[in-house]
Amino acid sequence: MTIVAFYGSIRDKGNSERLAEIALQDLEVTKVFLRDYHIRPISDWNQTELLKSEADDYPALIRKQMLADVIVFITPVYWYGMSSLLKLYIDRWSETLRDPAFPDFREKMKAKEVHLITVGGDDPYIKALPMIQQMEYICDFLKMKFDSYIIGRGDKKGEVFTDEKALHSAADLNNYLKSQFQEASKRGRNV
Amino acid sequence: MTIVAFYGSIRDKGNSERLAEIALQDLEVTKVFLRDYHIRPISDWNQTELLKSEADDYPALIRKQMLADVIVFITPVYWYGMSSLLKLYIDRWSETLRDPAFPDFREKMKAKEVHLITVGGDDPYIKALPMIQQMEYICDFLKMKFDSYIIGRGDKKGEVFTDEKALHSAADLNNYLKSQFQEASKRGRNV
Amino acid sequence: MTIVAFYGSIRDKGNSERLAEIALQDLEVTKVFLRDYHIRPISDWNQTELLKSEADDYPALIRKQMLADVIVFITPVYWYGMSSLLKLYIDRWSETLRDPAFPDFREKMKAKEVHLITVGGDDPYIKALPMIQQMEYICDFLKMKFDSYIIGRGDKKGEVFTDEKALHSAADLNNYLKSQFQEASKRGRNV
Amino acid sequence: MTIVAFYGSIRDKGNSERLAEIALQDLEVTKVFLRDYHIRPISDWNQTELLKSEADDYPALIRKQMLADVIVFITPVYWYGMSSLLKLYIDRWSETLRDPAFPDFREKMKAKEVHLITVGGDDPYIKALPMIQQMEYICDFLKMKFDSYIIGRGDKKGEVFTDEKALHSAADLNNYLKSQFQEASKRGRNV
Repeated sequence: MTIVAFYGSIRDKGNSERLAEIALQDLEVTKVFLRDYHIRPISDWNQTELLKSEADDYPALIRKQMLADVIVFITPVYWYGMSSLLKLYIDRWSETLRDPAFPDFREKMKAKEVHLITVGGDDPYIKALPMIQQMEYICDFLKMKFDSYIIGRGDKKGEVFTDEKALHSAADLNNYLKSQFQEASKRGRNV
Repeated sequence: MTIVAFYGSIRDKGNSERLAEIALQDLEVTKVFLRDYHIRPISDWNQTELLKSEADDYPALIRKQMLADVIVFITPVYWYGMSSLLKLYIDRWSETLRDPAFPDFREKMKAKEVHLITVGGDDPYIKALPMIQQMEYICDFLKMKFDSYIIGRGDKKGEVFTDEKALHSAADLNNYLKSQFQEASKRGRNV
Repeated sequence: MTIVAFYGSIRDKGNSERLAEIALQDLEVTKVFLRDYHIRPISDWNQTELLKSEADDYPALIRKQMLADVIVFITPVYWYGMSSLLKLYIDRWSETLRDPAFPDFREKMKAKEVHLITVGGDDPYIKALPMIQQMEYICDFLKMKFDSYIIGRGDKKGEVFTDEKALHSAADLNNYLKSQFQEASKRGRNV
Repeated sequence: MTIVAFYGSIRDKGNSERLAEIALQDLEVTKVFLRDYHIRPISDWNQTELLKSEADDYPALIRKQMLADVIVFITPVYWYGMSSLLKLYIDRWSETLRDPAFPDFREKMKAKEVHLITVGGDDPYIKALPMIQQMEYICDFLKMKFDSYIIGRGDKKGEVFTDEKALHSAADLNNYLKSQFQEASKRGRNV
């Protein structure tokens, strides 16, 4: 089983990253901090010539995603939604769906397991819910399974560590992912 | 009364732009097509030195917004949310809130009237609702008044013209904005 | 084509009823004012003996619904949801799904067209959205088509007549239903 | 500190009740199983004479609520919303707001702490979210504090005991309520 985690924060060691550390500890995870990559803006995907206009890091990232069994999106709540960094990465999928270089993108996305970890400072247990609903629609569209989400509360650095509920949920996700790993490796041995 | 319209589509003459044309016709509007401007990614706003790192078009745009009485956001539904182009513009507000060059940003935003026009291809009357809820939270945060939204259905170019309900709503918004203009100019004359 | 309309208001000639009058005018509609009927509370549907405990008007109403092609739910926004009167009627469907007297309930519901008309006094264009999302899930569960919804603003009697957008939407729905009627009767004649 | 819990299920020892047992264990709680009481339907609250038409158990229940510091609502997810039993109880608040027998209802509700515990069988972590949003609006309206919610997954009797995340959240709520109790009794002793 392979896990890829996409981090949408622009802040190093911010609350969402910290919460994700708990959820992902002692697991083999490919971590992608989107802020470390150059991703050009979306182009008009009806004008295919534009698709080739500029090389960037996106193709390498989407390949990582296509290879993974489990995708974890980690983002702070910025303005009551995912960060523009993460949204840009997802908006680019519209090009990939039309890109002859990735003919099997839609097929590969099917049945992938998605988890979302997010932390916000302003009443996130209520005000992050539209983002949760959006992620459900995103997953539905590509027939991915939106398996779980964790909402944490935190504004200043490290504040999420005071949100017991979020910490427990992150530990639960960690246990779950570990058990999935074990099952997968058992199945692997039997092959 | 001044109106500024921010367009989040990457497509020229796309459905959301067309629907907005109806809502804004015969009105004096400052139109900002975000795709025509360079807006650098958000930076870690706790590290103030980063704020000055790169010049871009954002300061000019946020000044237009601060001067307007009415703000119209126009965006296609991309992946069940606003476009990353528009989200980036909004994410940058977090820097502006801390930027000594804009000490009155929060004050200026108060009581501004906001309208949202959006068009989507996949069941937007249901699946754009999380974006509507997000916009409500955004406006609440800055004490702006989220006055109305229009959802239209359309995928291929021009398809929104078959959505009678959206066309009527756009015409209603146009009438409303014109009446506001007239009232404002009457008040102006009396001064 | 047959239309059944369920009214959830406890008030005679309230705002939601008025708005529905526009949407349904000059159409043949079976109108069910739920307040005029006795519907007993839901019982524990795992204890089938309870199902027969008390006769009420529900079986007659659900038969009307099963016979219709189009179902229109009309409810004021009470406490940011549908009225308890309408919710009780819908909760009873859980018994019907298990009731041997209605073996084809689920089958009959499939592909029925559903419309929702609602009026609220407290920012309904935002605060009625959870009810819209709930209705979508309800329709999904029974594979009904949630075709449209109309939200109107109004508190005092008749106040919805000042909501131009809602009036236009109701007129649009009326036109749509009439055109459906005509198409259906054309198809009927050809048979 | 006094806690009142309103149970909206029609089933004895159902999943939502079981989950609430964990959240409320070893606490002094006034438990109100709504199914055990007679609550007449809402009446047209603009016709005050109707208010006195029929005696029922509602006045006794609303008094319990007014006396409590903490209100816990417990309901299964029925048709993607709270049960009609609970919704009826809440709809009746509209009469209480106008009832001269309860002149201080609105004042008394202010700053009460509200918790919601709900269990659903069909993807409740997503499909119960509209109910959560509704409860937020309900609390906002009366200036109550919507402190937390717990969503659990379960269909058959006892199935919620397999939802680790829900069990942890219920235990967290239990700890929190106990600590509140202790603080309150400390404050009480100092008086």
